[in-house]
Amino acid sequence: MHDLIPTIPPLDQPGLGEALQRRIDNKTKPLGSLGRLEALMLRLGLILGSETPELQAPQMMVFAGDHGLAARGVSAYPSDVTWQMVENFLAGGAAVSVLARQHGLTLTVVDAGVRHDFAPREGLALCKIAPGTADSLEQPAMSEAQCAQAISVGRQLLAKTPGNALLLGEMGIGNTSSAALLLARLTRAPIEQCTGRGTGLDDAGVQRKTALLRQVLAAHPQAKEPLQALAAFGGFEIAMMLGAMLQAALEGRVIVVDGFIASSAVLVAAQLQPAVLERCVFGHQSDESGHALMLQAMNAEPLLQLGLRLGEGSGAALAWPLLESACRILREMASFESAGVSSSSS
Amino acid sequence: MHDLIPTIPPLDQPGLGEALQRRIDNKTKPLGSLGRLEALMLRLGLILGSETPELQAPQMMVFAGDHGLAARGVSAYPSDVTWQMVENFLAGGAAVSVLARQHGLTLTVVDAGVRHDFAPREGLALCKIAPGTADSLEQPAMSEAQCAQAISVGRQLLAKTPGNALLLGEMGIGNTSSAALLLARLTRAPIEQCTGRGTGLDDAGVQRKTALLRQVLAAHPQAKEPLQALAAFGGFEIAMMLGAMLQAALEGRVIVVDGFIASSAVLVAAQLQPAVLERCVFGHQSDESGHALMLQAMNAEPLLQLGLRLGEGSGAALAWPLLESACRILREMASFESAGVSSSSS
Repeated sequence: MHDLIPTIPPLDQPGLGEALQRRIDNKTKPLGSLGRLEALMLRLGLILGSETPELQAPQMMVFAGDHGLAARGVSAYPSDVTWQMVENFLAGGAAVSVLARQHGLTLTVVDAGVRHDFAPREGLALCKIAPGTADSLEQPAMSEAQCAQAISVGRQLLAKTPGNALLLGEMGIGNTSSAALLLARLTRAPIEQCTGRGTGLDDAGVQRKTALLRQVLAAHPQAKEPLQALAAFGGFEIAMMLGAMLQAALEGRVIVVDGFIASSAVLVAAQLQPAVLERCVFGHQSDESGHALMLQAMNAEPLLQLGLRLGEGSGAALAWPLLESACRILREMASFESAGVSSSSS
Repeated sequence: MHDLIPTIPPLDQPGLGEALQRRIDNKTKPLGSLGRLEALMLRLGLILGSETPELQAPQMMVFAGDHGLAARGVSAYPSDVTWQMVENFLAGGAAVSVLARQHGLTLTVVDAGVRHDFAPREGLALCKIAPGTADSLEQPAMSEAQCAQAISVGRQLLAKTPGNALLLGEMGIGNTSSAALLLARLTRAPIEQCTGRGTGLDDAGVQRKTALLRQVLAAHPQAKEPLQALAAFGGFEIAMMLGAMLQAALEGRVIVVDGFIASSAVLVAAQLQPAVLERCVFGHQSDESGHALMLQAMNAEPLLQLGLRLGEGSGAALAWPLLESACRILREMASFESAGVSSSSS
């Protein structure tokens, strides 16, 4: 297992943080007036190891998987929607497809464990561990071996992918249940604070989902460590996303995190290797209840709050131009000296 | 005067709102799951009069002017910074220059009343009403004739500009004072709630600024109507921006509003012609105190809250990709029928 999870060192390049801050402070603007963009500039500069960082060949990876628990009615949609949406991603018709085209993100859909056989084609990575996880009320969603395999495949997939920025998306009917279970177990938050409407349950549906998830938690009292909890509660797409994220952090790439599900993978990663968080930029705070709590547990403040609750990587994609702006401002904006602008009289 | 301010009718195209909502609801996503992007889609569709709106030749106009009141020390920077920053915009080195390049916005800097003679060149519109406003503690910042002229020139400038979207920016040392005075007079809010740090005053500076602005308000008790208040408190850049905005609304263009100063022009416009607000998209909530109050007065909720307090149009430019996303999703995203995706079981 010790080869599975790489050691992620803290970001530490002597002098770079100070040099970046000086560069930011000398831009032609009042001190601090670019607000949270300035913190983003600093972070991107540190991750990419440059005072003039450049984002290259950004990759949007959408990890898809099915969930045994979905058969118990935790979602407003049937499991078949997972594979149908994969087809929609590949045909270019989903929200994330549109946003990826807009922003020049290479879109790869990863079959981590969909209950469907896909024909191979461009843009689809066939990495199925199994056709859907097991029913986590009856047994662990994944065996430990399956969980390790999913992480390992995620790492290998990322390692052979170009670029220095990874945007994380996902698709899987039932996967807000996995994320809620991970949140409850790994932060000890009450399950009712972790459980939300997902794709659109009504109040009665949320109550049934919460009661079911409480039973699932009780069924796995021994699953306390991050990887045990991940295996118990699933899913394949979360485990494979975790692997890709760990590899991206190891390679010094920027990781752009989407909503509730992608954040649950970061939650697992951060408990294994806390320095992963230093490589993450959180794109959007989802309207899915539970996400605010999850972000708080990681001390994360997303760039956008637009009330989306779609997943797919949509929140990461919408935030992407802000990362581009931060890098361009670092590279292209004039200093007081170079522009001949008077500085503050105070 | 009745020819100066055009009549802006409410947005009203029978059936279009319902058709847009149906189109949004049939996209391959859970109902409402695109959050505030869905309201944006609806608004852009209504403004541009189409179920498949397309943003064309977007114009970033940065209106610049100087302020007589600046000599009394209401800013942390000297007035010369206004013309120096105009040169910086034109040389491509300012934040808004970088963002305009990133997003393909045509940048025009408008000299509405800078205390400096500029050589004519590409990208600069020479529309100077006077080299800076008068000191509003002693007399109205502008005469009524100057104010009307600035509005009229703004309308003419916009009328000969291509495109269907106008992004509003500004530059003017001292102009947070004008915006604070307009906010206080037009909403009757206490001046201390309207006055902020501007480019970076310290606490003592804000106290001095507040005391001075209280005196300025008291010096113009008769300036109660929107255009009287605008003339009393200035500046040329705000009046010309108002003219451009009114013309843009009349022509059915989308207006993207920046921060505190641009919003003060919208505040004046909304009191003259309330339906202008229906054509506005608010880009960013500034960190300048007073902006939250001003937005509240207009029932406006900006897309971004990133803590910027720079002006220039930076907040409008940063929000721009979200408008593009909204239009592209309307045009390009598949429906449940076209993609063969099962809809909700509930």
